[in-house]
Amino acid sequence: MSCPLYPTQPCELQRGRISIDSSNSHESKSPEFEAFYVLRPRGPSGEETKAAGLSVLSIDMCVSENKKAHNTDKYKCSTLIVRRNKEFTIIIKLDRAFNAEQDDVQIEFMIGSLPNENKGTYITLSIGKRKHNGHWKGRVVEIQGHDVTVGITPDASCIIGRFRTFVAVMTDLGKWRTQRNVDTDLYVLFNPWDPADQVYMDKEEDRQEYVMNDVGTIYNGEFNNITSRSWNFGQFEEGVLDACLMVMDAGKVPLLFRGNATEVVRQGSALLNAQDDDGLMVGNWSGDYSGGTAPTAWTGSPEILLKYVKEGCDPVCFAQCWVFAGVLNTLMRCLGIPSRVITNFFSAHDNTGNLKTDIVLDDDGKVDRSRTKDSVWNYHCWNEVYVKRLDLPEKYSGWQVVDSTPQETSDGLYRCGPTSVNAIKEGELSYPFDAKFVFAEVNSDVIYHKSDKSGKMEIIYVDSAYIGKILVTKKKGSSTYEDITSTYKYQEGSLKEREAMQTAVRRGVSTKDYLPLTEAGVDFELQADTIKMGDNLKLTLNIKNQTSHTCTLSATITGCVVYYTGITSTTFKHENKSAIVEASKTESLTIDVKALEYMPYLVEQSNLLFVVYGHVEERDASLSSMRVVTLSPPELAIKMTGSPRLGKEVMISVDFQNPYNFNLQNVQLRIDGPGLIPTKLKHYSQILPGASVKYKVSLFPQSLGKKVLMACLDCPLLRQVTNQLEFEVVQD
Amino acid sequence: MSCPLYPTQPCELQRGRISIDSSNSHESKSPEFEAFYVLRPRGPSGEETKAAGLSVLSIDMCVSENKKAHNTDKYKCSTLIVRRNKEFTIIIKLDRAFNAEQDDVQIEFMIGSLPNENKGTYITLSIGKRKHNGHWKGRVVEIQGHDVTVGITPDASCIIGRFRTFVAVMTDLGKWRTQRNVDTDLYVLFNPWDPADQVYMDKEEDRQEYVMNDVGTIYNGEFNNITSRSWNFGQFEEGVLDACLMVMDAGKVPLLFRGNATEVVRQGSALLNAQDDDGLMVGNWSGDYSGGTAPTAWTGSPEILLKYVKEGCDPVCFAQCWVFAGVLNTLMRCLGIPSRVITNFFSAHDNTGNLKTDIVLDDDGKVDRSRTKDSVWNYHCWNEVYVKRLDLPEKYSGWQVVDSTPQETSDGLYRCGPTSVNAIKEGELSYPFDAKFVFAEVNSDVIYHKSDKSGKMEIIYVDSAYIGKILVTKKKGSSTYEDITSTYKYQEGSLKEREAMQTAVRRGVSTKDYLPLTEAGVDFELQADTIKMGDNLKLTLNIKNQTSHTCTLSATITGCVVYYTGITSTTFKHENKSAIVEASKTESLTIDVKALEYMPYLVEQSNLLFVVYGHVEERDASLSSMRVVTLSPPELAIKMTGSPRLGKEVMISVDFQNPYNFNLQNVQLRIDGPGLIPTKLKHYSQILPGASVKYKVSLFPQSLGKKVLMACLDCPLLRQVTNQLEFEVVQD
Repeated sequence: MSCPLYPTQPCELQRGRISIDSSNSHESKSPEFEAFYVLRPRGPSGEETKAAGLSVLSIDMCVSENKKAHNTDKYKCSTLIVRRNKEFTIIIKLDRAFNAEQDDVQIEFMIGSLPNENKGTYITLSIGKRKHNGHWKGRVVEIQGHDVTVGITPDASCIIGRFRTFVAVMTDLGKWRTQRNVDTDLYVLFNPWDPADQVYMDKEEDRQEYVMNDVGTIYNGEFNNITSRSWNFGQFEEGVLDACLMVMDAGKVPLLFRGNATEVVRQGSALLNAQDDDGLMVGNWSGDYSGGTAPTAWTGSPEILLKYVKEGCDPVCFAQCWVFAGVLNTLMRCLGIPSRVITNFFSAHDNTGNLKTDIVLDDDGKVDRSRTKDSVWNYHCWNEVYVKRLDLPEKYSGWQVVDSTPQETSDGLYRCGPTSVNAIKEGELSYPFDAKFVFAEVNSDVIYHKSDKSGKMEIIYVDSAYIGKILVTKKKGSSTYEDITSTYKYQEGSLKEREAMQTAVRRGVSTKDYLPLTEAGVDFELQADTIKMGDNLKLTLNIKNQTSHTCTLSATITGCVVYYTGITSTTFKHENKSAIVEASKTESLTIDVKALEYMPYLVEQSNLLFVVYGHVEERDASLSSMRVVTLSPPELAIKMTGSPRLGKEVMISVDFQNPYNFNLQNVQLRIDGPGLIPTKLKHYSQILPGASVKYKVSLFPQSLGKKVLMACLDCPLLRQVTNQLEFEVVQD
Repeated sequence: MSCPLYPTQPCELQRGRISIDSSNSHESKSPEFEAFYVLRPRGPSGEETKAAGLSVLSIDMCVSENKKAHNTDKYKCSTLIVRRNKEFTIIIKLDRAFNAEQDDVQIEFMIGSLPNENKGTYITLSIGKRKHNGHWKGRVVEIQGHDVTVGITPDASCIIGRFRTFVAVMTDLGKWRTQRNVDTDLYVLFNPWDPADQVYMDKEEDRQEYVMNDVGTIYNGEFNNITSRSWNFGQFEEGVLDACLMVMDAGKVPLLFRGNATEVVRQGSALLNAQDDDGLMVGNWSGDYSGGTAPTAWTGSPEILLKYVKEGCDPVCFAQCWVFAGVLNTLMRCLGIPSRVITNFFSAHDNTGNLKTDIVLDDDGKVDRSRTKDSVWNYHCWNEVYVKRLDLPEKYSGWQVVDSTPQETSDGLYRCGPTSVNAIKEGELSYPFDAKFVFAEVNSDVIYHKSDKSGKMEIIYVDSAYIGKILVTKKKGSSTYEDITSTYKYQEGSLKEREAMQTAVRRGVSTKDYLPLTEAGVDFELQADTIKMGDNLKLTLNIKNQTSHTCTLSATITGCVVYYTGITSTTFKHENKSAIVEASKTESLTIDVKALEYMPYLVEQSNLLFVVYGHVEERDASLSSMRVVTLSPPELAIKMTGSPRLGKEVMISVDFQNPYNFNLQNVQLRIDGPGLIPTKLKHYSQILPGASVKYKVSLFPQSLGKKVLMACLDCPLLRQVTNQLEFEVVQD
């Protein structure tokens, strides 16, 4: 005899476990009538329930008044958008006058498919005879005729996203609820204007730059030649807010976490790259961008975000660091988290978790490419967000580093941060998230190793000032850069700097003890100008003898083509030189580099890297140095005809001439202008040597103030050709 | 005319990026000859290179002497296993006597497919004319005839895993290397005996228990009735060490991280569950274990680990918390990290990141199952590892919580910890990893809500002493438990406890401000004995009136069947009672529960949960309480015939009688004994009511000392029927 002790169960392995609601776009069903008791098999008829004598005719979300008051009127979206902890008003239109002593009306907001009062995904507020306030506060502002104006204040830590609005009339029999109506939906965002919000910033000019500015400048190039390009953040463009929420849904960020800026930032950094979680963009450093758009060709974020949504959340091809940083900036500003794009010049990428970047020279003093696995990026872009870290001691609030470029897995996923900039400066690296990695990016030493003929390696030189040379961001209210190096590090060589390094070591950063090296007594300096791609180059090696004796020096100069990631592609030059330098004198050696030598080996966005190894005979001491030489691309001209006035046509032309003796093929030309025009894209199958192209666009400015128009030309043989034009739109 | 500026490239998106070596089982090729210079097109002939006049005939790894000295002789494995920062010796057999002044011999150890000296995956040591020591130290101990005995000391933080050993003779022409020979491979493990190692424990008795003990006790049941089962950790069993390394390979743990115990622990916690990373075991709480083994049926880790390897790293089905903890314990002890299994009785599982566990009662005082989403696990098992946290301030070293049961994603993956037990106690929750989650597991409040007929909820009672009632682990050198609650929390109600809670709140734990509740002035206590499954039960509700007035109390008792995870399965009882209790008196109410009432609804490993809601009329105040009643399974008897002597046969019999009036079908009976026999499994298609089974096994003890034999009977209708037998094997 068998006994049905166990009911048959479907194979849900997590039965008896908890399911987590992680989608803003999935909805629960909200019945129009919920009976308190089932009175009869079929429930009460509509007439009986309505007999309570009060019906809701409609809800007016007062969209334009509320948006103005909530600093959300720039969003191109007809739905109400508000910020946390600030009252907004709605008008409930009834079929008779509201009686505050007798009527019992409940306002409900729901998000996700499992609205739950305990989890903050189901909000109720009562007006009338029963006073009930949960986390959100509600009050009757005014009763006028059949209209009740209600003031509602979402709490300062509530979930951000799109809520559904309902109004229910409570009777003795049950709850009579309005129908689902997307027009009464409500977006709630972070509120940098409110001191109780985790993302509060106290200066209006800061908020205008870091939350409200929808265009920015991203710095690139190289330390000796900092260049820039404009970027269309476009956080207010139509569809961008929905796209940002969709990214979080696709990444299964639990709704519960969406009220905590630290979590939203961390998850955002993982979601932007498609490395391990079907994120927004595919990183590609291969040089082959067929099947997608080259990272260099984009001009802004909206095009990428809207493409992602349009293609069913399929990752967009392709991105590199400034694209990741530009789009993450849009995601943050769009949700109301203050953020900015940072560029670190000579950024260490250290995959061993210690503070070394190893450069290996062979027996001849040439760079040994097979053994040089570390790299120094000429520049690397990341973001900073301004957040109160509720999880950390107070002094670690403020700017936080967050990086969505897939460099290393942080705790299993490709992402990095948020990590407090203050903590990086103090070497206080125990706190989450990824402080050690960021500390190494700005503080590593460059270690030059030299191998003897048997392959045995020896450290010959340590350069502790090369990495993290300067960190910059766009200055607020300006398009020049602000040097923020001092927010990341104390001055090189200062007592405070040494103390921070000691703290870092106590927190587990491993520095290797270098054996004391023989002082060469001689200093190297490699000088070179930025040249146009295709020009010859003159390199000068200054040798400064700081001793009181004559020094005999032999030097080996290696020239390589490198990616912006610092990875060497090809060695194209190798030259030996020697010099005798008298005591306390400086000698200069000149090395000529012909265009013919490097041109055949160029990769996209490439620079030339020169490494010099020197040996001082008298002391048997070695020294090393390196220098990056930027190859600047040809000019892209933007011209405007007429002066820009509100609503009046203005003509823009973008001009480019091919200065090379080879064809440029598959050329893309983009023009972008946040708030002016959607991204325009023009294809040229080829541009012949010496030939010119001209792309004309007409536009009608729709709003006043400063605008930026940007252009970008891109093809497999030529990348990073950009320019921008700033102008003021005035009243006609 | 087109110009080949860019060489054609394959589409490797990460070109110019760094690849990470994350497999111990993948090997690089190590050529037998590496020329220093290419002398002629085909390289030198063997004769020329050998002309240097020294050849390596063989390498003796001195396995048994070294293993004894390194506390690794228990591993059933013929390969050498050593621990970090302790010298081991090898003998290099040459074809002539070694000349320390002239010869140049290099010993090499390699791990992974990209051995690199800078990354610790390629180790070289020189003996002879060139002295070279890297991170590992080497010295010539003795030269005897043609044999050179070399002492080698791996550094205290080196990578753990399986290294390949080579010896190379250096000549002017090049390096002449021995062939790859798996017999000279070398496993390096963590070293709890060495003060410089991150996992050092200073007491030998601690190391014997937490590293060397291959059998343990895992506590389960319920706070009022703590039960236990033995577990075969089996870290020394044949194939287990290789399986542990293979788990790390399958989980792509970078070799670089494998010297850092914190990383190994954290990755280990993620790798054990198959939730998101093809880990070792599939968690299953469904009750349906077809297609696998029920979590309750396992007796130890080796069977699971060996199955995983045998089936090509396919996740093993199925596990629940004690299985995850048992296998993680094996992984840790096997690699040399001290660890133990912890059981927390009444463990909160809080998915909102705050300190509340919500129980919702409906208008009648019955448990509202649809709105009670949180759960309190009757017990939950995790691990502690003993590790120096190099990444944290010193006081947070020592025991660390690590949990591999897939409860919540921690930072994107299912895992938890390591997090310092000291930090949990102090409420210092900012430090990594997952301190808040563990703090909530032991410190949450149980909040009783009651909804009125319109669904509006109100908090009626807060029980702050229910969760984390007691934390236990096996006492060292004993099979009873040790109460370690005081390592996690200060005494309930003490000043220190309040301070820790305040710190926790400052670190971002959110407690909700409960409105002050009306004091009922009445106390509840639910009493019940543990009963055998199938027995009737008497439940007593003691009502203590602490006021100076008579109280009129109405009480609602709900009886549910619950999983060990605390999730309610079915409500089988609902009874209203009332009582009038005089001032300062105690009244008792009795509730009878018949087997017939609960038997039809039982799920596996289930208990009965009784929740009582009471209302005191005079004060209009509410109170609530709950009580879990364990249903104990029938007995499984283990008997031994004769006394166990080394090498002599002894007979074991395991007996079971079906006490029920129904068939037990698909019964599995396992017998396991670490160091005695491999896991034995017997199937019975059915055991009729009243019928008995007897399983006899003969064994020949191969080593002296205390042994544990364990048995486990399991079938869909009856789980967790276990017993163990301890005995001492003596010299014959």
